[in-house]
Amino acid sequence: MSTCFQKCDIRPFVVEGQQVGLIKSDVLKHLEKYPEVFCIRDCEQTKQGLVELNPAFRDYNERTEQLEKVLRNLRSEGLFPALQGWRDEYFEVKSERRALLKMERAATPLFGVRKYGVDINGYVRHPTHGICIWLQQRSNTKETWPGKWDNMVGGGLSVGFGIKETAIKEAAEEASIPYDLVKNLVSAGCVSFYFESRQGLFPNTEYVFDLELPLDFVPQNSDGEVQAFELLPAKECVERVFTPDFKTTSAPVVIDFLIRHGHITADDVVDFTQIVELLHVPLQSLYTYRARLEQAKKHQQNLPGDARNCRCGSLQKKSVENGHKKDT
Amino acid sequence: MSTCFQKCDIRPFVVEGQQVGLIKSDVLKHLEKYPEVFCIRDCEQTKQGLVELNPAFRDYNERTEQLEKVLRNLRSEGLFPALQGWRDEYFEVKSERRALLKMERAATPLFGVRKYGVDINGYVRHPTHGICIWLQQRSNTKETWPGKWDNMVGGGLSVGFGIKETAIKEAAEEASIPYDLVKNLVSAGCVSFYFESRQGLFPNTEYVFDLELPLDFVPQNSDGEVQAFELLPAKECVERVFTPDFKTTSAPVVIDFLIRHGHITADDVVDFTQIVELLHVPLQSLYTYRARLEQAKKHQQNLPGDARNCRCGSLQKKSVENGHKKDT
Repeated sequence: MSTCFQKCDIRPFVVEGQQVGLIKSDVLKHLEKYPEVFCIRDCEQTKQGLVELNPAFRDYNERTEQLEKVLRNLRSEGLFPALQGWRDEYFEVKSERRALLKMERAATPLFGVRKYGVDINGYVRHPTHGICIWLQQRSNTKETWPGKWDNMVGGGLSVGFGIKETAIKEAAEEASIPYDLVKNLVSAGCVSFYFESRQGLFPNTEYVFDLELPLDFVPQNSDGEVQAFELLPAKECVERVFTPDFKTTSAPVVIDFLIRHGHITADDVVDFTQIVELLHVPLQSLYTYRARLEQAKKHQQNLPGDARNCRCGSLQKKSVENGHKKDT
Repeated sequence: MSTCFQKCDIRPFVVEGQQVGLIKSDVLKHLEKYPEVFCIRDCEQTKQGLVELNPAFRDYNERTEQLEKVLRNLRSEGLFPALQGWRDEYFEVKSERRALLKMERAATPLFGVRKYGVDINGYVRHPTHGICIWLQQRSNTKETWPGKWDNMVGGGLSVGFGIKETAIKEAAEEASIPYDLVKNLVSAGCVSFYFESRQGLFPNTEYVFDLELPLDFVPQNSDGEVQAFELLPAKECVERVFTPDFKTTSAPVVIDFLIRHGHITADDVVDFTQIVELLHVPLQSLYTYRARLEQAKKHQQNLPGDARNCRCGSLQKKSVENGHKKDT
């Protein structure tokens, strides 16, 4: 995978020695104009090209301000379609639990920063149709995916909000779900996927919640971002989610729901295991600059014992001695 | 990942041009004694060492018989602990939906063949304790994982049985669950993980089913492979599944259940997304000999247009043009 990223000329974006993003060459060439903010260099140890936020910046605030100045400049030059969707909404850029800076939400695809969101699958148990799922149709005036079908409720995780807290907030704003219903939210895992568009790179993780609703409840939009809601039997939902009328980046959440509730099964679909694996792409394997650096340093120290160790990237390797009866 | 596997000296096992397994050097050296069955060579195109089942074998039956002769020999020599657990139970070795041969279940770890099984999470909704989960304690006389705690019901997929069919069969054998209860089985996805032990390589996928049971139902073992069943509140289950008393290879199924039902959440556990990703390791990325061969051939044809294409392994790369408003 790393070989491929080198070939595609995608470089790690490094802050405080930690890789927090991925930068493609079409973005890189514009960052070269800001040498006081970005150090663009080859790593001595890993021999890999990288983009480093100036390590002289002292703290969270200075890093945030310096980066934002560049982003506002790039926006005013009109070079990146992604920045035309500027929202004055911040995403926190973290590494290993430590918040390093915050970044305008619209800019995260340019830096290939991992993006986190929440999604609520709203459903009812209908006496004759079985499980039915509430979908929303996005407003035609939305900047992204206008008019497409989408999950009942979804939104990005912004600075200062918890995961369930964000779900509850979005449930109220997007679908007017009152607290006595939203208190039944069930955390149901997450889906992780990766895609590219002309807007940039999207290494996305969506935290998924299920919410069973009463038969007579009808969602109402409060923030003008939704033009319609529709209740669809699970079987029809399986069909709609694979049409071009469905927002591509929301499809994994609905497919995950349909799988978890038995509406897409291994006996029905030949590529079942592959589909499940693609809903959970190991995104952390794209952010391994620090690990590779440490490995390269270890290699240079030339310790024969350690050098023979094999590290298998994202694989969970476990040598199990107690799994089987010992020979007696 | 492939680089690592070359370093570790794990070779693809190829049947009819398709990679179906992974062979470590400690197994390889014993296969060298059977040149009429295994062609051990370097691939001209990919430059990678591989083990190929003699392509002169004509069909499913001949491949099965020739391989089985070797396995019975190896077993009688007592070289591999894995083969001491011989069961006269066959696993089907497939590639892209086509069955290529069947192999004694105990031998699959030596050839690193993908193994598939089914697991049933049996649970009740208790009026005061909430969701409680039935666990089984494995018999002390079992060959593998004797005395360990395990899911209520689990078993391998054998030749000739469907996935749900296997779940129903195992539910009857292991826990005496009658048909009027087992008909409520809900398919809930699968978990995929990889581990190694002295028995060999385990690239395992477990198809997962949930089964809500009545409060007064108590599982009874029918096949002598279980010494006890215990009903545990979800919270206590979270604790037990991480102890050494729990069968390591069943833990992913229980952790997946606890995540899907909201008992392990992203707000509680810092490494939540990483845990979810590790429950769904993209195992198909370990079986890519055919794809690499085709890529190498294409490269040799030196077509500049195709050569510039970038293939990102297991990543779901999608260039989305219709996701965003077109500039007008």
